[in-house]
Amino acid sequence: MRIATLRADAPGLGYIERGAVGAVEGNIAFVGPAADAPDAKEIIDCHGRWATPGLIDCHTHLIHGGNRAREFEMRLEGASYEEIARAGGGIISTMKATRAASEAELVASALPRLDALIAEGVTTIEVKSGYGLDPGTEIRMLRAARRLGAERLVRVETSFLGAHALPPEFAGDADGYIAMLCEEVIPQVAASGLADAVDAFCENIGFTPEQTRRLFEAATRFELPVKLHAEQLSNLHGAALAAEFGALSADHLEYLDEDGITAMARVGTVATLLPGAYYFMRETNLPPIEGLRRAGVPIALATDCNPGTSPLTSLLLVMNMGATLFRLTVAECLAGVTRNAARALGLGNRIGTIEAGKSCDLAIWDIESPAELAYRMGFNPLHARIWSGQ
Amino acid sequence: MRIATLRADAPGLGYIERGAVGAVEGNIAFVGPAADAPDAKEIIDCHGRWATPGLIDCHTHLIHGGNRAREFEMRLEGASYEEIARAGGGIISTMKATRAASEAELVASALPRLDALIAEGVTTIEVKSGYGLDPGTEIRMLRAARRLGAERLVRVETSFLGAHALPPEFAGDADGYIAMLCEEVIPQVAASGLADAVDAFCENIGFTPEQTRRLFEAATRFELPVKLHAEQLSNLHGAALAAEFGALSADHLEYLDEDGITAMARVGTVATLLPGAYYFMRETNLPPIEGLRRAGVPIALATDCNPGTSPLTSLLLVMNMGATLFRLTVAECLAGVTRNAARALGLGNRIGTIEAGKSCDLAIWDIESPAELAYRMGFNPLHARIWSGQ
Ligand SMILES: [Zn+2]
Ligand SMILES: [Zn+2]
Repeated sequence: MRIATLRADAPGLGYIERGAVGAVEGNIAFVGPAADAPDAKEIIDCHGRWATPGLIDCHTHLIHGGNRAREFEMRLEGASYEEIARAGGGIISTMKATRAASEAELVASALPRLDALIAEGVTTIEVKSGYGLDPGTEIRMLRAARRLGAERLVRVETSFLGAHALPPEFAGDADGYIAMLCEEVIPQVAASGLADAVDAFCENIGFTPEQTRRLFEAATRFELPVKLHAEQLSNLHGAALAAEFGALSADHLEYLDEDGITAMARVGTVATLLPGAYYFMRETNLPPIEGLRRAGVPIALATDCNPGTSPLTSLLLVMNMGATLFRLTVAECLAGVTRNAARALGLGNRIGTIEAGKSCDLAIWDIESPAELAYRMGFNPLHARIWSGQ
Repeated sequence: MRIATLRADAPGLGYIERGAVGAVEGNIAFVGPAADAPDAKEIIDCHGRWATPGLIDCHTHLIHGGNRAREFEMRLEGASYEEIARAGGGIISTMKATRAASEAELVASALPRLDALIAEGVTTIEVKSGYGLDPGTEIRMLRAARRLGAERLVRVETSFLGAHALPPEFAGDADGYIAMLCEEVIPQVAASGLADAVDAFCENIGFTPEQTRRLFEAATRFELPVKLHAEQLSNLHGAALAAEFGALSADHLEYLDEDGITAMARVGTVATLLPGAYYFMRETNLPPIEGLRRAGVPIALATDCNPGTSPLTSLLLVMNMGATLFRLTVAECLAGVTRNAARALGLGNRIGTIEAGKSCDLAIWDIESPAELAYRMGFNPLHARIWSGQ
């Protein structure tokens, strides 16, 4: 077996030519040349195939009611945003469908999307709330997200994204909505352990930096790490704000500036790029890849799977988009859906590379070189997936 | 079952709400309201699912040796075309790998690509030669393409594309190469029935319009229909030339002008658009969609599956790209991979719509509306595929 360990301390992909991986109780106990491998009770021969860490989708909105295919169709037929809104489109339509769905229905509608990711070697996903926009539905979304981890052999990390959009009940009172989230919902999701992080949408059409700051202060009081949808459509200096709170990641970043890069680099905040949304929205402003590289900011890639701006369930396609649209190298694309995606979830010491002590999450590929994973479009060369040694 | 018949004489998708399709000996004998359906020996209940015509990929280079993932990787690392050529990249590397492969090897390496297409409901594919560039290998490629139709339940149409690139043996003598194709190879592929059409690459880096004309004259002498890679990188007026010969299709067309559109409209030449190559090559010049619409030129969409400029094996993704990048409507995308793709292969009276008398090639989808087929990315909602009634 050829192994791309993705170790941070090895050059390139951390390549081992004739390698072997040994696992004990779901964790990697050995990785190195097959010749040095200890005896094992059970051996799976992967012949000349490639092993990489199991893939990690570190930014998804996998749980949601309905879909927005009709809105997509209307837009192609020339409908304006106003006409779409009048026809019941936009994020509010997803909110309504999500509010109307039971926990079981939310799980059932997300499973085919999850299965598509898993079929391509995904072993860990992040899932956000943010389409309920009321306490009960937000919490139901988080429960449904957790439930996915019981339905499938996959690790689920959750983010509370109550500050995704302003619900109609709070029209004209964004401050009041944020106060409600800080005083009522964050304490609840913290106490229940339903959220692993707190996220927000800081944007002209979302929440202001000041509102985001109040939310992050509440999260910090409850020892929840933060992350942020930042600089997607304009530059509100959200990434720097996130870094101030030691954010795990700042996501999107098409309009990120040098100061934001510097702030992220200082605290090790991961830049999670979402080329699917860039492509689907026909964005033309590229994230500042060269600046991120120069500053040593770790770059992750994710699907941003969501019904409005990225109905995407293929992390392999994300790698291709990262390479084709953002000109990331193959090694950067692969690190982006493994090692750096793990960091974006605060799980850098548990998953994301093939190293002793980490969870034995592997993807085994029918390929001749890892470049094929980013090169092809709409082709899945996964041979097998191993999650926690299973 | 809800049926999108794609009939040309019906509005939109030719929708039948509670429909049924009856088949006799592989051909459609009845399509209409389920209430009017005649008795049948065997009934397959599709519940509320959608049926569309089986998908047709009308432009592929599915048969080829090797892949160009390394070249893709080098380009991302900043290598120039010259460095890539020196490292053995470019179309010549595919030519070498193809020449070195036996017919069985060519078939074996194409099958996973074909299976990816079939898994998304494809029932007919076109396959071109064009990586042998010598008589023996070109003919071996066509044989391998035909062989795919014996290995899987799929209809294979072949195009002879000897004029794809100039082989090193003829360096500096493109006229001599074209003469050899006209005098030696076309008579052979016509006599053997190995090619259903003759194709060429008319471009500054390919063959001149004058050389293309000679090739088309030879094809016409042997009663082989023609098609053309035209106006991909520049405007050599290839589409108008193709139309002059009553071409089935002109393909790519990013640089097509009004005269070309008019010429195509006059003879009914299909415009086959290839958004995968547009995307992969980061082209920015859009094909003249509005002009094609206005002139009533039928628009087809295809993968252009090839190792150099479109390593793409998903016709669903092509539909999404057609909508997202080219702003085609959902109905145009769906017609592009069914009815108009059939016309691009000269098979408009056999396949491409759900109508009595045509082959019973169907795709049954787990969707609520056909818009979902173009809206999603990296998701396959195929429930079942029926080819020739099987
Ligand atoms: Zn998001
Ligand atoms: Zn082509």
